[in-house]
Amino acid sequence: MLNISIIGSGNFGTCIGRLIAKNIKDNNKFNDEIKMWTYEEMVEGKKLTEIINEKNENVKYLPGVKLPNNLKAIPEIKDVVENADILIFILPHQFVERSCQEIKKYIKNKNVIGITLTKGILYKNGLIFISDYLKDNLGIDISVLMGANIAKEIANDAISEATIGYNIKKNGYLLKEIFNSNYFKISITDDLKTVELSGTIKNITAIGYGIALGLNAPTNTTVAIFRRGLIEQHKIITEIHPTTKIETLFESAGIADLLVTCLSGRNSASGKKIAEGMGLEEIEKSMGGQQLQGPGTAEEIYHFIKSKGIEREYPFFVSIYKICFKNASPNCIFDCITKY
Amino acid sequence: MLNISIIGSGNFGTCIGRLIAKNIKDNNKFNDEIKMWTYEEMVEGKKLTEIINEKNENVKYLPGVKLPNNLKAIPEIKDVVENADILIFILPHQFVERSCQEIKKYIKNKNVIGITLTKGILYKNGLIFISDYLKDNLGIDISVLMGANIAKEIANDAISEATIGYNIKKNGYLLKEIFNSNYFKISITDDLKTVELSGTIKNITAIGYGIALGLNAPTNTTVAIFRRGLIEQHKIITEIHPTTKIETLFESAGIADLLVTCLSGRNSASGKKIAEGMGLEEIEKSMGGQQLQGPGTAEEIYHFIKSKGIEREYPFFVSIYKICFKNASPNCIFDCITKY
Repeated sequence: MLNISIIGSGNFGTCIGRLIAKNIKDNNKFNDEIKMWTYEEMVEGKKLTEIINEKNENVKYLPGVKLPNNLKAIPEIKDVVENADILIFILPHQFVERSCQEIKKYIKNKNVIGITLTKGILYKNGLIFISDYLKDNLGIDISVLMGANIAKEIANDAISEATIGYNIKKNGYLLKEIFNSNYFKISITDDLKTVELSGTIKNITAIGYGIALGLNAPTNTTVAIFRRGLIEQHKIITEIHPTTKIETLFESAGIADLLVTCLSGRNSASGKKIAEGMGLEEIEKSMGGQQLQGPGTAEEIYHFIKSKGIEREYPFFVSIYKICFKNASPNCIFDCITKY
Repeated sequence: MLNISIIGSGNFGTCIGRLIAKNIKDNNKFNDEIKMWTYEEMVEGKKLTEIINEKNENVKYLPGVKLPNNLKAIPEIKDVVENADILIFILPHQFVERSCQEIKKYIKNKNVIGITLTKGILYKNGLIFISDYLKDNLGIDISVLMGANIAKEIANDAISEATIGYNIKKNGYLLKEIFNSNYFKISITDDLKTVELSGTIKNITAIGYGIALGLNAPTNTTVAIFRRGLIEQHKIITEIHPTTKIETLFESAGIADLLVTCLSGRNSASGKKIAEGMGLEEIEKSMGGQQLQGPGTAEEIYHFIKSKGIEREYPFFVSIYKICFKNASPNCIFDCITKY
C-alpha cells in the first residue's frame, strides 16, 4: 500500500488533506493514514499539531471544519517524507526553495511521485517552473494540480473541478485516483506547463479585472478586460511554452480558474483597492500581511516580455505592471481596448 | 455618398442608431442622415416617430438618452429601404420573416449591403441562420455583428467590443467603419457562422448559470457550469458548422458575450427564477411579456442533438432542456459535472 504525505498545512493544504484523507479511505491501493507536514507553532499555549490531531480541526488555518481522523499533523519533515510514496506539495511559493533542501534528504528513492499545487513561478535570471525546480532538486517525477478552487468552498464539499498535468501518464492516473471524487472532478492532461502557467498568469488579469470593478466600469467593459487578459494569457503561455495546447485553456485550470479568480479572488479584491488609490504595501497589510501574487507575477512577466522586445503585444499586462510599479493611472488599463 | 438605414428601433436598435449616427457624421463616405424604421405607435396621444424626431429621444424604448439629430425615425418601410445602400437589421428574431417580405420589394439592387444584429436562429425542419434567411430572401450580401453588448451600457458610451462576421471582406471593412469608434471597438472575421451561432447558443448556458446562482451554488460550481457551457457551445458549433475556427471563440462575440450574458443578462435572471420554482410563462409575464431566447434555443438545439443521436455528448444542454420543458429538477444541472 502506498503512503501519501502532504507538505504544507495552511488553509488550502488542510482543505486538500481533508479531501484526500476522505477520498482514499476505502481504496486499498493507499495506506489510510495521510501525513501532513505542519509547521509547528503555539496556539493559545498549545502545539498546533497536537490540536489538529486531538480536535480533528486546524483551528488556526481552517477553523470550523471537521477533519477526518486519518489525517495526521506531523511537525518533523523527516517523519513525513521518509516513508512517503506520494508527496503532495502545497506550500506558499516563497517557501518552496527552503523546504526543498530539507525534503531532499529524506526522499526514499527515485520512484516517489510528487505533485505540486503551489501557484507561482520562481525567478532566477529567467522563469523557473516550480514543478521543474522540484523535479530537478528532488530527483523525482512531479505533476501539477490547478483549477477553479476557492479553498473554503472545497472545505464545504462544493462541486468543483481541477486539472492534473502530468509528465508520466501512469502517475497522472494514479494521482487522479487520489484527488477525484463525486464533488471534486479531476481531468488530466499531458500539457503540464500550460496548467502550471495558467495558475500563475491568471493573477495578472485578476488584478486588472479588480481595477476595472474598482473604477465602476460597466459590465461590457469588465468582460472586455477579461477577454484581453485571456488572450494575453494564451499568448504569453505560447511564448514561454510553444507546444501549449489550446484545449488546455478550456480545462478548469485555464478559463475556469481565471474566471473564479476574477470573480472572487484576493488579487481581484486588491485590484479594487488599487483603483481606490491604495498602494501595494498598504493592501498587503490590510490583508493580514499575506503576499499578493498578481503584482509580482506582472513584474516578472513584464521583465520577460521586455527582454524579448515584445511589450507592444501585451498592452494589458504591461499596463498592470505600470499601474502597480510605475505610478501609472489605474485608468490606463482601458487603453488596451480603446487604443488597439 | 452611401445611405445607411436601420431596420428596427427598439431598445438595442435605437442604441445602435445613436452610435452610428454619431460615428459617421464626419465621414464623407456616408450620408449624414441615418434613417431608422420605426414601428408607428401612439405614445401619450402622439406618434412615436414624431416624438423621436422632435425631442431627439426614443421616449418609449430608450428614455433619457439624447439622440443625435441626424438619426431620423421613419414609419414607412418603403421610405427607409428604397434609397439605402446599407441596411442594418436589428429586429426581434420573431419579426424577421414578416419584415423580410416587405423590405424585399424596395431594395434598390443587388449591391446593397446588409448586416444583422438579431440574435436567434429560425427553425423550419432544421436550423436556418438569420443571415442566410436574409441573404436568400433579399438577394443581398449579409454580414453579422455580435458581441458583449448590454444595450443600456452602449447608450452610455461604455467601452465595449463587438465582432463583425463577413462573407465578403470589403463589406466587412466598410461595416467596421460604420460601427467602430474609440469606445465601441470592432474586430472582423470571415467566420461569420461561428459569430452568429455564438450569439444564440450562449443563452442556453446563461439559463444554466442563472439556475446555479438561484440554487446558491458556490463560485467553484458556477464557474464549472460556465466552463461546461463553453465547451458544449464550441462542440455544437463545430457540429453545425464544421469549419468553425477556435479563435472566433476568443472574440467578443464568443467568450465575452457568453460571460456578459451569464453575469447580467435576462436569460441568466430567468434561470434564477426557474431555480426558485417559477414556470417559463410566469417568468416571461414578470418580464413584461418579453420572449426569452434561452429556453427556445435549448429546445431547438435539443431536437437537433436528438436527431443526430448525440444527446450523451451534451449533458449540460440536455439538462437545460429537461428543466425548462420536462419538469426535471433544477438540481440536475450539476449532473453534467458530477456524473461525467
